[in-house]
Amino acid sequence: MKYIKDIKEGDKVSDIYMIKQKISATTKNGKPYDNLSLMDKTGEINAKVWEPNSPGIDDFDAKDYVEIFGETVSFNGALQINVRRARKASEGEYLPADYLPVSPYDPDRMYEELLAFVDSVKNPYLNRLLCALFKDDKDFIGKFRFSSAAKTMHHSFIGGLLQHTLAVTRICDFLASRYERLNRDLLITSALCHDIGKVRELSAYPDNDYTDEGNFLGHIVVGVDMISDLIHGRDGRTGIPDFPVVLENELKHCIVAHHGEFEYGSPKKPAIMEACALNFADNTDAKMQIFTELLDNEGDKTGWLGFKKMLDSNVTATRVE
Amino acid sequence: MKYIKDIKEGDKVSDIYMIKQKISATTKNGKPYDNLSLMDKTGEINAKVWEPNSPGIDDFDAKDYVEIFGETVSFNGALQINVRRARKASEGEYLPADYLPVSPYDPDRMYEELLAFVDSVKNPYLNRLLCALFKDDKDFIGKFRFSSAAKTMHHSFIGGLLQHTLAVTRICDFLASRYERLNRDLLITSALCHDIGKVRELSAYPDNDYTDEGNFLGHIVVGVDMISDLIHGRDGRTGIPDFPVVLENELKHCIVAHHGEFEYGSPKKPAIMEACALNFADNTDAKMQIFTELLDNEGDKTGWLGFKKMLDSNVTATRVE
Amino acid sequence: MKYIKDIKEGDKVSDIYMIKQKISATTKNGKPYDNLSLMDKTGEINAKVWEPNSPGIDDFDAKDYVEIFGETVSFNGALQINVRRARKASEGEYLPADYLPVSPYDPDRMYEELLAFVDSVKNPYLNRLLCALFKDDKDFIGKFRFSSAAKTMHHSFIGGLLQHTLAVTRICDFLASRYERLNRDLLITSALCHDIGKVRELSAYPDNDYTDEGNFLGHIVVGVDMISDLIHGRDGRTGIPDFPVVLENELKHCIVAHHGEFEYGSPKKPAIMEACALNFADNTDAKMQIFTELLDNEGDKTGWLGFKKMLDSNVTATRVE
Amino acid sequence: MKYIKDIKEGDKVSDIYMIKQKISATTKNGKPYDNLSLMDKTGEINAKVWEPNSPGIDDFDAKDYVEIFGETVSFNGALQINVRRARKASEGEYLPADYLPVSPYDPDRMYEELLAFVDSVKNPYLNRLLCALFKDDKDFIGKFRFSSAAKTMHHSFIGGLLQHTLAVTRICDFLASRYERLNRDLLITSALCHDIGKVRELSAYPDNDYTDEGNFLGHIVVGVDMISDLIHGRDGRTGIPDFPVVLENELKHCIVAHHGEFEYGSPKKPAIMEACALNFADNTDAKMQIFTELLDNEGDKTGWLGFKKMLDSNVTATRVE
Amino acid sequence: MKYIKDIKEGDKVSDIYMIKQKISATTKNGKPYDNLSLMDKTGEINAKVWEPNSPGIDDFDAKDYVEIFGETVSFNGALQINVRRARKASEGEYLPADYLPVSPYDPDRMYEELLAFVDSVKNPYLNRLLCALFKDDKDFIGKFRFSSAAKTMHHSFIGGLLQHTLAVTRICDFLASRYERLNRDLLITSALCHDIGKVRELSAYPDNDYTDEGNFLGHIVVGVDMISDLIHGRDGRTGIPDFPVVLENELKHCIVAHHGEFEYGSPKKPAIMEACALNFADNTDAKMQIFTELLDNEGDKTGWLGFKKMLDSNVTATRVE
Amino acid sequence: MKYIKDIKEGDKVSDIYMIKQKISATTKNGKPYDNLSLMDKTGEINAKVWEPNSPGIDDFDAKDYVEIFGETVSFNGALQINVRRARKASEGEYLPADYLPVSPYDPDRMYEELLAFVDSVKNPYLNRLLCALFKDDKDFIGKFRFSSAAKTMHHSFIGGLLQHTLAVTRICDFLASRYERLNRDLLITSALCHDIGKVRELSAYPDNDYTDEGNFLGHIVVGVDMISDLIHGRDGRTGIPDFPVVLENELKHCIVAHHGEFEYGSPKKPAIMEACALNFADNTDAKMQIFTELLDNEGDKTGWLGFKKMLDSNVTATRVE
Repeated sequence: MKYIKDIKEGDKVSDIYMIKQKISATTKNGKPYDNLSLMDKTGEINAKVWEPNSPGIDDFDAKDYVEIFGETVSFNGALQINVRRARKASEGEYLPADYLPVSPYDPDRMYEELLAFVDSVKNPYLNRLLCALFKDDKDFIGKFRFSSAAKTMHHSFIGGLLQHTLAVTRICDFLASRYERLNRDLLITSALCHDIGKVRELSAYPDNDYTDEGNFLGHIVVGVDMISDLIHGRDGRTGIPDFPVVLENELKHCIVAHHGEFEYGSPKKPAIMEACALNFADNTDAKMQIFTELLDNEGDKTGWLGFKKMLDSNVTATRVE
Repeated sequence: MKYIKDIKEGDKVSDIYMIKQKISATTKNGKPYDNLSLMDKTGEINAKVWEPNSPGIDDFDAKDYVEIFGETVSFNGALQINVRRARKASEGEYLPADYLPVSPYDPDRMYEELLAFVDSVKNPYLNRLLCALFKDDKDFIGKFRFSSAAKTMHHSFIGGLLQHTLAVTRICDFLASRYERLNRDLLITSALCHDIGKVRELSAYPDNDYTDEGNFLGHIVVGVDMISDLIHGRDGRTGIPDFPVVLENELKHCIVAHHGEFEYGSPKKPAIMEACALNFADNTDAKMQIFTELLDNEGDKTGWLGFKKMLDSNVTATRVE
Repeated sequence: MKYIKDIKEGDKVSDIYMIKQKISATTKNGKPYDNLSLMDKTGEINAKVWEPNSPGIDDFDAKDYVEIFGETVSFNGALQINVRRARKASEGEYLPADYLPVSPYDPDRMYEELLAFVDSVKNPYLNRLLCALFKDDKDFIGKFRFSSAAKTMHHSFIGGLLQHTLAVTRICDFLASRYERLNRDLLITSALCHDIGKVRELSAYPDNDYTDEGNFLGHIVVGVDMISDLIHGRDGRTGIPDFPVVLENELKHCIVAHHGEFEYGSPKKPAIMEACALNFADNTDAKMQIFTELLDNEGDKTGWLGFKKMLDSNVTATRVE
Repeated sequence: MKYIKDIKEGDKVSDIYMIKQKISATTKNGKPYDNLSLMDKTGEINAKVWEPNSPGIDDFDAKDYVEIFGETVSFNGALQINVRRARKASEGEYLPADYLPVSPYDPDRMYEELLAFVDSVKNPYLNRLLCALFKDDKDFIGKFRFSSAAKTMHHSFIGGLLQHTLAVTRICDFLASRYERLNRDLLITSALCHDIGKVRELSAYPDNDYTDEGNFLGHIVVGVDMISDLIHGRDGRTGIPDFPVVLENELKHCIVAHHGEFEYGSPKKPAIMEACALNFADNTDAKMQIFTELLDNEGDKTGWLGFKKMLDSNVTATRVE
Repeated sequence: MKYIKDIKEGDKVSDIYMIKQKISATTKNGKPYDNLSLMDKTGEINAKVWEPNSPGIDDFDAKDYVEIFGETVSFNGALQINVRRARKASEGEYLPADYLPVSPYDPDRMYEELLAFVDSVKNPYLNRLLCALFKDDKDFIGKFRFSSAAKTMHHSFIGGLLQHTLAVTRICDFLASRYERLNRDLLITSALCHDIGKVRELSAYPDNDYTDEGNFLGHIVVGVDMISDLIHGRDGRTGIPDFPVVLENELKHCIVAHHGEFEYGSPKKPAIMEACALNFADNTDAKMQIFTELLDNEGDKTGWLGFKKMLDSNVTATRVE
Repeated sequence: MKYIKDIKEGDKVSDIYMIKQKISATTKNGKPYDNLSLMDKTGEINAKVWEPNSPGIDDFDAKDYVEIFGETVSFNGALQINVRRARKASEGEYLPADYLPVSPYDPDRMYEELLAFVDSVKNPYLNRLLCALFKDDKDFIGKFRFSSAAKTMHHSFIGGLLQHTLAVTRICDFLASRYERLNRDLLITSALCHDIGKVRELSAYPDNDYTDEGNFLGHIVVGVDMISDLIHGRDGRTGIPDFPVVLENELKHCIVAHHGEFEYGSPKKPAIMEACALNFADNTDAKMQIFTELLDNEGDKTGWLGFKKMLDSNVTATRVE
């Protein structure tokens, strides 16, 4: 299949793509046409169906998989496919994994490892909180496993939030084993919960865009709100009785401070050692992943890749074998 | 009465002060003594009772008003009163207002004006939320009226939070009358609620210091949590049914963004016009109050007052009549 | 009429536009042609007259209103109209207000309100200064009413300077009524004069661009210079005798410091309360106007509008009714 | 003579000092006493005359030179001389140069060199402006030669403004000889005038402190005002007829921009090459002088001198011979 | 023994301290005296021997251990011991570890672990470089094991450089096991070498202060120079033949960039993934250690410890058990 | 000849250009073609030879001078020449100076002046170091004279490094004559050596791009390494015996600190007066040159040139004659 990122001006297209969006419109001359956004795991491209009701054009909707026949032209500086034929594809004709970006790691095995971390937390209140979230809340679990960790920066694929959460927790687990003043239970719980607000900050795939709540409040404030819900209940549901006040403050603080700096949206700077450790673990995994994705994408390029804003540096692949 | 800020090395003292703190200790030679923190509305001073069980020393505790007889000495660069006699004073011998800083404005009239603003909010959800807080929640109302608006910066006196909230709301009311795109109900509600988290961020007088929750989370995150409680209930209590989701996000956003900049602890920058207006109103009242308190304190000084960090400038009183 | 902002590649054009600029040039092949800049209140567009001396092309000059017939093509990534016919229009055929952006408020009523503020200033020196400027100096008054408040940021339309000055003065008037330490006369005078330098910083419409003096010195330094002229006279004219030195310094300081921060071009930070209040009033009106213009322009868009540099935030319209 | 900077707790004092300030006051017990500020070129010290009307205490006033007999004590952490006897000294008993800091260079020779630079400016308008200032304005010349270039930073001694102005002009002269695009007349004139506002920003010795105008406007805005006065006259006096407008803007711009950065109080950044060159020349001389004064003051110290804020670095003397 | 940090005004002293410095001087009255700096692992204190040649005062020099008898007074705001008797102590009377701060971990076991990391590096060039440094260069090994990792910030004790280097290497080892794109050999080598320049940046104990080279160049530049020496030889000695050029650049780059930001003295930002990982590992261990030392020092304090510059936050101990 | 910067869409081309790069490739249809990068001193342009083996296409390689016949088209927003004929030109048909940017000054005369500075250094160690570099090291001299001083910022032409080094040295020479505390020998040596690392940071023309070493380490670290080589020898060569340690540190420090600020890549801030002077001299010449190149390039433009990032300002040519 020809991936969207490889389509160039002049290319003929005859492949199955996912319909991300379909809007019916009218030309200046009053003729109806359809404005499509086609998607695969490598990107998106605009397409126009100028004769929507002609024989070669099947009925289809957003989220359908459709075989598109057409030519790629350049219009106002952007590529656009003029669609001559559009055939709705049946399941089996395509691999869903080709159409939405997914984590390279197996989600079940990752979640299993995450649950092992949950079980390793001895503090009864923290353990109960983690179980309420990661074992009992099916709706949350579904979103958490399906969500990316970001719209674009890093881990922006299905399973990305799970993969990132797990990686951060592993680093925290290592640090807890090396620095005896760290309280492992608090640190592991904070690591597991640090980005839970992202299930409400980002909409589900194929959108994967900032929600209203994400734009207005951000995943840090939302995450703290979710912890409040778990501990105190909400809309009449029960919470976790007798959850110690200091512990609630410490856990929320770790979430509040996990970006480490005001300018990255943390309203408080790390005040306890676990918050500080979590900030480094989060940042380390993010940067390691950015490097990994960048170098994966650049393929066989061996030279300098130019200034990369997310790394604030001109970077290159390491060449020593 | 001799105010604490006027006590100098060598002064004899014979006045009634409030006991902020009393700690019993032992000298290196094993002799018991009492370490006191005396307080009035102008400041605090350390005092030592070297003969705690002698006849001239009454029994008393923190928060008592006590007539202190002693001499002021300088020890390790700080003033300290050596107490010879200490007599517990009776109500009527002292004016409580001399011992804790209070707003120069009448709290009842201020609260009346605040309630008039509450009543002026037409949106039924916002009105209900405001009533639940400012009319029905006696515990909150008591704390809100008694609290300062800050530990030291400005409005750091009893009634300060009420005075500041009211002043910010007035400016917002004016702006709503001048800029038609502003939604008055949302803006007035945001103004009234913008600092409610301070009742949990700061401990009650005479302490008036950051609480654990204040240090760990700050009044912005706490304020959002209080709005969640009001709307959704908590620990089994009811909230406000059918509160519109968008409105909840917008109101919380105004609180989240009211400091205007990441570096001042707002995890989001103002995204709607009301959040922007609230930020300016809050900042304007803060700076006007800082100037007012500063010039009040400097009394009859007419020259330049030197660099003031809170105003980031070398300032002076205006001289034009 | 078809507004310039709505013209797209391929559109046929047959409407009256203002000629902002007309330059005669020669093609590589030695053929003469005219290079035009067409303007209406919504923007500008390039146009080429390839046969300048042909029958269908009237004689016309910059600032004329001309009916243009032609086609819109894209050249080097920008739109350009190839003009086939150009007919000079007569007065009455067009509405001047369609061709230059103007304030939505009536200039006479705004100026009336401004003069009422002038009359409300009791200090005889400040009042005399304001009268000399806003009542007696016809040349200044003409420029002041016709000028925008900025090239692009906000209030960039005819009457913008008047509208902004009035709005800032209103806020200052409100603040003077609420904070008793503010000297109303000084504050109102400063508000009325804070941007007078803009009549020299920006050229008149249809240019509305930075002048030499604007680029070299900026409206703050120019504004202080204008105050010096008014008080001390210049080039042999009289000024205002016995104007108090301290008052001159305070007034100039308010102008000097009204941007509030060094990085915004204020060589001094606010040192008196009136300078501080003016800075907030100026900033508040600027931001309220930016929001207003932005939301007006976005029309019926209901989603997030993306990061807006002037507001340093991703913004959206408020949705609560 | 014992310099003030060398006086230590416990020292007996019997030397002539200049009286910077003399304030009569009353002790808590109602006894009159005199509060003095003694000064020499190395610093200031507080002194108290507890028996002002006793036989050993002569009559004297601020700016008198007085022989002081007394002991040095420490009070509230600061040194203070208890004066037993005070004898007004006659001219001839002391060297004025010991009491006010002065430039190590001869003022007449420096001024001569400065005038040679004035004469080297060929542009008739600039030359006329320089002559009006540096040759004809006796009041200005007196202040200019007597003024320091700063309260504390560098060149804070009598003649400092002249010395700094000359040094900056020399560097500019050199740069004009090396970079042919620099306009020498404009650059030399800008260099000579860049700090003229300091004669109004700083009060005369022995005060040498910021004036009202200095605090409110600063020497940049004042300097531009002085240029306006010279070119356009003021209060009815004549200026320089036909001074080219562009040249006026360029010259003022060089003054406006000579601090180079907004954060250093320049409301505009250098826009022409001469403004850029002037900024570097000014900065270079300032830093060379700071190093020179620092190393002069540290005397024979050979190690690292610690972090110096004005140089933003930990510095040391160069050791290579 | 009474530790120096516990000595207070008025305390009598009779313990053995190390002499850090001894300077013979003369009082104003011409009397000789000795000015001492006493030291133990908790700090330093000044001491004066007013009768250096009296019977009770033994002969001793800097770095000797001496039993001091005297009283502690406060002079000019600092503590000072007036020494009545001073007896040179013999080995065996004191524990050297009481006088210089040392790592709480066993140096031999730490070095053993470090050597295991050396052996784990498979790349022959990197392995040879590490062996040349950590196995063959006895002078370097002695300094490396004895050095602190900083003058004051963290790990400022004997063995601190070894402890920090090992901790950073462990984190890097963990990261190399988790992120497959990391080249373990390069990362481990960089971790082991990242701070080797500190053996020349800091002088040996008891000084532990910045050397000339440290102040002028810093440990980053010095570290790169040491790598050059190892690879290319110096002053006629041999290096490591055929060391690959790219590998030399990558290794040096990791050292150059390990502070991560220009403002922390790295002239380049991390350009390869290993440099990025090293930066995080270095920073994480530094912050974990700062927290550990801070909380160790604060002992049983349970409240908020105030703003700590090194952590840029108000911090507290974690309370959850 | 038609310079590359003047070529526009639609232009026919028939001139000699240098081949910077030649890559043989294959179209999607399997047809071979050549992808060229043509270069002259004004820029680069892409060219395609669609029929590489046709009669009109000579054999040629990178760095050849070739007469190109073809048409200029626009493809994907960039210009591209479709080459119909390509004839390899013979020496004499073209002026090499038209194809690579060169300094406007004579390299031999510049180098002569540089050597005079070398000879003026009296300190035997510094003199010996300079001779070893600028007189004896033929390989270095060749690179130094041929190198630019930057890839793009300023002096980015052959001879640029020599021209810049000389200009900086001249300013330093002037400063040494004016500020007596400056050590001339150290300052002149530092000036001559401050950018020597650029011969390894940048590749030779026609590339003139950052090398691996330049990207990984930068010319500051490389320059210090080169000084180490000169003093201590390397790879078995001799150095300069008995070079004083302090002098080595001071010289290296001047190189290390010559960018003046951490954010510009200096790992240390100027700690001695010579380092400070060098920083200003370097910066002054850079900015003077940027202005000169900018104004040269803008030719006869008289207005404002817009915001220029390298000068951080909107700039214009000076107009006073």
